[in-house]
Amino acid sequence: MVRIEIRVIYGDTDQMGVVYYANYLRYFEAGRTEFLRAKGLTYRDFEERERLVLPVVEAGVSYHAPARYDDLLGVEIRLTEARRASARFGYEVRRGEERVASGFTVHACVDLAGRVRRLPKSLLERLAVGEEVAS
Amino acid sequence: MVRIEIRVIYGDTDQMGVVYYANYLRYFEAGRTEFLRAKGLTYRDFEERERLVLPVVEAGVSYHAPARYDDLLGVEIRLTEARRASARFGYEVRRGEERVASGFTVHACVDLAGRVRRLPKSLLERLAVGEEVAS
Amino acid sequence: MVRIEIRVIYGDTDQMGVVYYANYLRYFEAGRTEFLRAKGLTYRDFEERERLVLPVVEAGVSYHAPARYDDLLGVEIRLTEARRASARFGYEVRRGEERVASGFTVHACVDLAGRVRRLPKSLLERLAVGEEVAS
Amino acid sequence: MVRIEIRVIYGDTDQMGVVYYANYLRYFEAGRTEFLRAKGLTYRDFEERERLVLPVVEAGVSYHAPARYDDLLGVEIRLTEARRASARFGYEVRRGEERVASGFTVHACVDLAGRVRRLPKSLLERLAVGEEVAS
Repeated sequence: MVRIEIRVIYGDTDQMGVVYYANYLRYFEAGRTEFLRAKGLTYRDFEERERLVLPVVEAGVSYHAPARYDDLLGVEIRLTEARRASARFGYEVRRGEERVASGFTVHACVDLAGRVRRLPKSLLERLAVGEEVAS
Repeated sequence: MVRIEIRVIYGDTDQMGVVYYANYLRYFEAGRTEFLRAKGLTYRDFEERERLVLPVVEAGVSYHAPARYDDLLGVEIRLTEARRASARFGYEVRRGEERVASGFTVHACVDLAGRVRRLPKSLLERLAVGEEVAS
Repeated sequence: MVRIEIRVIYGDTDQMGVVYYANYLRYFEAGRTEFLRAKGLTYRDFEERERLVLPVVEAGVSYHAPARYDDLLGVEIRLTEARRASARFGYEVRRGEERVASGFTVHACVDLAGRVRRLPKSLLERLAVGEEVAS
Repeated sequence: MVRIEIRVIYGDTDQMGVVYYANYLRYFEAGRTEFLRAKGLTYRDFEERERLVLPVVEAGVSYHAPARYDDLLGVEIRLTEARRASARFGYEVRRGEERVASGFTVHACVDLAGRVRRLPKSLLERLAVGEEVAS
């Protein structure tokens, strides 16, 4: 599990005074990048060196409590599943102990021509270090 | 079912050259507003007159094919479920006949003090006109 | 002059209940694309056929009155200046007669290797049809 | 001068592979909040305690060099001018030593009824600590 902090800006809120629902997917993405970095990878390298991309094929969010301007949110990211050609991440967004939102993303592995590819084994091993991953 | 059209702008895309995954939730929201309008309601009136809001409690998106800059997308919105204190909308995003993304949102009904409330019956009847709604 | 309409969505607003200040640059961009289309061009073709891009090198916005959720805004786009290697667009955002915001963008003309290039004369002539352009 | 760091996420980029031009105004805003915090204020307190808001009345950005996904940007924020009822901030965005963008925002001071008000003197003194401010 990797954890990052995000400060809610004005531009993240909507007129209900809370974080707009689409922006959690931005927070998840910021977390995903740091998850890879914590495992010794950068997504940028991944695209450039491995010639692979990991597009999102499915995403879901549950909204438990509103987050507000200037809140300091913690985002926890876990690799929850790794298959031949897809990976699944889980996310928890918290303000202190309170759970604000949770969700997941499923990623395919495709090459730069758009063909589905296996996730390289060396990559999977690296991502899975310290994670409880179903396969 | 209500249908709107959305033109993809540069600001909706990311460096993969496709619409960024969070932006589909913006498209869904644009569609939801027009769905209400087509049923003779505006969400603005709803908040002001009924003193109720319909916050999203859950959302999900499946990404079937990438959408690109300047694509003209059709977004179809359906009310798929109406319960005592929640409503569920379904969405299909298409480019011509091709399905680009699909998804759903579930909304609670709460008053301005944040208490869960019943969806007013008159409102539900109006929303359900022409829809195939589970309850 | 070309004019488009934009419906303000919830995701465009912030907790002050008004359109977040950065989003006017999105509205400007939506207008720019339609300006090109109205002149018989698409920016997509432009990039693909001419192998040129028109990155923004400067932008400015004046905020005259707040725009709100569900407002139907008119955005007027004018080509106000065309030089050897740059072009300037002006924008007015209105709600009915009321002026909500105004602004400008200045664009360089660069090839795909990032070198500054002349704006093709045929292109300039096409853009300038019906516009009052300084040069 | 106050300085913050921002990591560019995928959602900040566009299909040209660079940070979308509107997003610099988001970065400026993130910086503004931290500027206030560094001076012992929060904008949230400001709205709640002083019953004043500081809406942006003008903004401008110059784009010097493209920023890319995963870049770690430094944003420097300065209070450059403080008048009776308005304040002006200046911003520099850098990647290492390289200047990526610069800009400004001008803010009015209005009460919650929307009337223009003087900037409280105590506030100005606090903001100006360590700044070179024109008045």
